[in-house]
Amino acid sequence: MANLELIKSISSSSLSKIVLVVIDGLGGLPNPETRKTELETAKTPNLDRLAAEGICGLSDPVGPGITPGSAPGHLALFGYDPLTFSIGRGVLEAIGIGFELQPGDVAARGNFCTVDKAGLITDRRAGRIATDKSAELCQLLDGLVIDEAEVLVRPVKEHRFVAVFRGEGVQADAADTDPQRVGVAPKPVVALSPDTNRLASIANQFVAKARLALAECHPANMILLRGFSKLPHLPSMGEIYKLKAAAIASYPMYRGLAKLVGMQLLDTGPSIENEFATLKQNYSSYDFFFLHVKGGDAAGEDGDFARKVSVIEQVDSALTELIRLKPDVIVVTGDHSTPAMLKGHSWHPVPVLLYSKWCRPDKVTEFSESACLSGGLGRVPATEVMPLAMANALKLTKFGA
Amino acid sequence: MANLELIKSISSSSLSKIVLVVIDGLGGLPNPETRKTELETAKTPNLDRLAAEGICGLSDPVGPGITPGSAPGHLALFGYDPLTFSIGRGVLEAIGIGFELQPGDVAARGNFCTVDKAGLITDRRAGRIATDKSAELCQLLDGLVIDEAEVLVRPVKEHRFVAVFRGEGVQADAADTDPQRVGVAPKPVVALSPDTNRLASIANQFVAKARLALAECHPANMILLRGFSKLPHLPSMGEIYKLKAAAIASYPMYRGLAKLVGMQLLDTGPSIENEFATLKQNYSSYDFFFLHVKGGDAAGEDGDFARKVSVIEQVDSALTELIRLKPDVIVVTGDHSTPAMLKGHSWHPVPVLLYSKWCRPDKVTEFSESACLSGGLGRVPATEVMPLAMANALKLTKFGA
Repeated sequence: MANLELIKSISSSSLSKIVLVVIDGLGGLPNPETRKTELETAKTPNLDRLAAEGICGLSDPVGPGITPGSAPGHLALFGYDPLTFSIGRGVLEAIGIGFELQPGDVAARGNFCTVDKAGLITDRRAGRIATDKSAELCQLLDGLVIDEAEVLVRPVKEHRFVAVFRGEGVQADAADTDPQRVGVAPKPVVALSPDTNRLASIANQFVAKARLALAECHPANMILLRGFSKLPHLPSMGEIYKLKAAAIASYPMYRGLAKLVGMQLLDTGPSIENEFATLKQNYSSYDFFFLHVKGGDAAGEDGDFARKVSVIEQVDSALTELIRLKPDVIVVTGDHSTPAMLKGHSWHPVPVLLYSKWCRPDKVTEFSESACLSGGLGRVPATEVMPLAMANALKLTKFGA
Repeated sequence: MANLELIKSISSSSLSKIVLVVIDGLGGLPNPETRKTELETAKTPNLDRLAAEGICGLSDPVGPGITPGSAPGHLALFGYDPLTFSIGRGVLEAIGIGFELQPGDVAARGNFCTVDKAGLITDRRAGRIATDKSAELCQLLDGLVIDEAEVLVRPVKEHRFVAVFRGEGVQADAADTDPQRVGVAPKPVVALSPDTNRLASIANQFVAKARLALAECHPANMILLRGFSKLPHLPSMGEIYKLKAAAIASYPMYRGLAKLVGMQLLDTGPSIENEFATLKQNYSSYDFFFLHVKGGDAAGEDGDFARKVSVIEQVDSALTELIRLKPDVIVVTGDHSTPAMLKGHSWHPVPVLLYSKWCRPDKVTEFSESACLSGGLGRVPATEVMPLAMANALKLTKFGA
């Protein structure tokens, strides 16, 4: 029995409430001067108190050594094995810009690229053209109707865009046109199953039209498509956990991921204070809240150690009010590590803090990577965080008699 | 290769002996006044010495956050993945009362229930009628012969009973009649595969006869059946481990589970002293002993912290004689946690102590939840306890050349 099936069979609805606070990219590495990580440097009286009263540990979003993207990191935290539930690149790109995919849509990730007179690729990213320029070019391509299917084109960032094929009978089982190297021509869209012939034909016509439309737009005189995909079907958190779940996140990617698993999206502002205020306003209406703090990852990616420390401290301050609401379970963790020292996501396990009145105490008295190493949760796959939160909220009945 | 296949391929018989002492519901939570769990409160000089000389850790019977019933908890300790080897509800209920199921029997868990004049359920448990009353009613239904199959009915507790269908060609793949809610009629027994048509027909006739027989027995004027099941086939501990295994347990459920995995059941008395005396008497005749102490769980379920402490202390005393027998491996653990604070089974990991002369020492000097957290065994699935015991008894050969 897969884990979700097991949880679904024993979960039940109750009045208890769970709050999952995700500080994106929480895990870090020590600053060589101070020998302390971002979390260890931050002054976090609330987190330390919750750690002392609750239970701590470290989690692996995908597996030891694996650096997760945002999507697998979050799916794991929501309890969905990211190796089982994969989301296509095209769909992720669409979710990332807040594009409302409809069931049946096929989305592809696009690159503007440069080809020479012979049609061979000389730059897969068209010199990383500016986002403004890319947006103009997308308008040239957007809204074409080919064989009664509509092609919607939206800019992402620099040379990246999303192409969405919307029409009866389009399927996503098609190979990338991006050969992933220069000196060769883009490949045609090849259907990998007979069902996808229609999509392949439409996409190939789209690429041909794009080439004509972009002929004079050097360096962005051609496009590459990859990751043809449809919205995956994920069982909702309502089905699995019997939770009425709400998401508080300001970035499209995380709102999109939360929507994929059936959370209600709450309107909120961009700051940490806004997000916690939204939680408070809606506290009585839901029994599960996912609150996403983007700033930790952004600071880590920028290599800005001090700013990441500050983001963590802001979350700690905001927790004062959350704690007053007395949720039955509070979980504070990250979707992956983003050490400022590495300026990017990393494979390091992620600190997890779980507070409830039913935690068996450990000796951890502060929330930090080094303290979590000897915490009572031990080292767990991130997919176990939700079952543990559910158990501590007394929302899981006994398995077997 | 599944774990059992692996162990089977490398296990061998030898003169060394393993004793597995299961203190049912061993794991606990701290008493808020003393901040110590039941095990931490108990005076346990023998256990502490074994812990100091052996190796300790924590185990998850099913998985993090999952609260196990007795059956999955024990199957895991015997090395059988409880998510792979599931035992039907009817079979478990029969095992729990010591009913000797024969191969081919189909067992169902029954409820006496109340229906109104229209036949709609008004109480799924017939007001939880007394066990005595239930036993009388079972006699009304017991021993019917329908289409050459015999229907055996035995009381369990309060409104619960077991119905066993015994006859050529009965199969268990049938849906429950219990709709799990009131205001609707009981469902008919529906065969979920053509093979089960005969059982469905017999069971439906049985339900109709029961309804007539119980017509004047309000509130127990109808029955509900669920969990139709047959004895599962589990490979025996003899096959897997090449052990000659004996079980010392006084409760039917644990005797039944031990029998399912091929252990010899030894006659014993109800007390902890009786059980350890039985072990001593039979020590020369087996190389594996499973000794089950029920009292820990019962005290935990009653919320009786002090009684659970006392049970643990009684086990500790009894260990004096066991240690004199010098088994090669002694394991002391539980099948799950039953914190007195929660008055029920829980998801918290279970302390494990493994003593042998071949343990690599850790720093644990007492047997307690907090000490086990930093023990050398770490945190392991409970299914790993038997392989570890086998290894420490030098009964497993090298895997691969």
